[in-house]
Amino acid sequence: MIMKIEDLSINLATVRQQWNLQEAVEACARHGITAVDPWRDQVAACGLAEAARIIKANGMRVSGYCRGGMFPAADAAGRQAAIDDNRRAIDEAATVGAQCLVLVVGGLPPGSRDMPAARHMVADGLAAILAHARASNMPLAIEPLHPMYAADRACVNTLSQALDLCDDLGEGVGVAIDTYHVWWDPDLAAQIARAGAANRILGYHICDWLVPTKDILLDRGMMGDGVIDFRHVGSMIEKAGYRGLVEVEIFSAENWWKRPGDDVLRTVIERFTAIA
Amino acid sequence: MIMKIEDLSINLATVRQQWNLQEAVEACARHGITAVDPWRDQVAACGLAEAARIIKANGMRVSGYCRGGMFPAADAAGRQAAIDDNRRAIDEAATVGAQCLVLVVGGLPPGSRDMPAARHMVADGLAAILAHARASNMPLAIEPLHPMYAADRACVNTLSQALDLCDDLGEGVGVAIDTYHVWWDPDLAAQIARAGAANRILGYHICDWLVPTKDILLDRGMMGDGVIDFRHVGSMIEKAGYRGLVEVEIFSAENWWKRPGDDVLRTVIERFTAIA
Repeated sequence: MIMKIEDLSINLATVRQQWNLQEAVEACARHGITAVDPWRDQVAACGLAEAARIIKANGMRVSGYCRGGMFPAADAAGRQAAIDDNRRAIDEAATVGAQCLVLVVGGLPPGSRDMPAARHMVADGLAAILAHARASNMPLAIEPLHPMYAADRACVNTLSQALDLCDDLGEGVGVAIDTYHVWWDPDLAAQIARAGAANRILGYHICDWLVPTKDILLDRGMMGDGVIDFRHVGSMIEKAGYRGLVEVEIFSAENWWKRPGDDVLRTVIERFTAIA
Repeated sequence: MIMKIEDLSINLATVRQQWNLQEAVEACARHGITAVDPWRDQVAACGLAEAARIIKANGMRVSGYCRGGMFPAADAAGRQAAIDDNRRAIDEAATVGAQCLVLVVGGLPPGSRDMPAARHMVADGLAAILAHARASNMPLAIEPLHPMYAADRACVNTLSQALDLCDDLGEGVGVAIDTYHVWWDPDLAAQIARAGAANRILGYHICDWLVPTKDILLDRGMMGDGVIDFRHVGSMIEKAGYRGLVEVEIFSAENWWKRPGDDVLRTVIERFTAIA
């Protein structure tokens, strides 16, 4: 996969401690970056209409919108609230011109140990929002999360499982493949090929796995600092037919979030273009 | 699955900060526990013959011996050294009367990002020690480790992957199923059934997944303190035909390793028998 700066999108969580949405988008533009993926809280902080204006004024494409999901809840009212909230997220994603709504599906409801039930709630939640997503021309990108988040963030933990959900749901849904979450999977090659053959790859996110990993959520690595073979994964993604944006998304409380945003973007560009 | 104290084995890592092997074995006997799983470093500290004597003198069964594996290495000499070391581990396991040798297969060699190569080294290493294991009547128990250990501890990360290895290797090899490592797996029920049908379940280990998990290696939980549904997993294990010992193995640097060993054992027994 040729990784050119035109293919690069910055997930704005990568610079969330340094900049608000406007500052981050303008910085991306300054560095020659042409796409972003904003988070709902960042959009809410400046207002939806203003966020859309900033993104458009800076000529940014929007590789995805983070995030919907979080379907499981302890009771029916909670599950309905999640569905309603996902419908609003679809509308927001359409307003900012996102190519898809990224879904982190949610884990066990508080106090529950019933994974099959949580997974059932996810399938039900997806089914409940699908008509609105289709009517809004907003593809839903299920992001399988690393199994270490199964309890508290996402009970969809492999690409295979996400693609099974897609098979059940039909049109309008696909997957966001993040190297951090899937790199370890012994079935990765087969499942990327399967995703491509079904035309289900809606996003490709990259960030590195550090050894040691000091924090289960906020110690993700810049490409090249960890153990992931980005050329290998990228070549599988390319063979599967994906030609879209490549999004860099790094949560890094003790390292990249503490550095000046411009340094972070410069390093992203340097490492990104070195992958090819 | 009925969890009676007669089914309980204590993996001696659970009390490694409190006691040496003799102290730990005698404490188990004092609490009415009839089985243990010692680690190689604990055995080495008192000497192999003495360890075997202590275990026998206290009437302990040995549910497993921890651990062999760690096959991948940067060069052929390193891989051969690992194979030689695993042969010694098989001999030690036989001397202490273990029911199986538990294998943590190893991750990426230093500096490598090539997971397929590491996995190939594991398959080669297993094949190289199998004849000696068979001749020693020492079953090899491949323990799939949680995907968060793929880089640095074990590149066998699902039960499915471990069972595929078993299929390739034939007789004399099976799996150790640890709830901590596999509880999240969407394919768990099918793969436990598969393991049972092939008569491959050599060990069943339990410990809980804490939310939040504060350390990627040493923050494992006592049963009941986390999110794992032990009755559910245990019923699948039982349906699969497993009737062996159930081993409690908890690495807990900031909690259980800091408490008096007798308190830890009392709590293990209390929680263990409450699962049924």
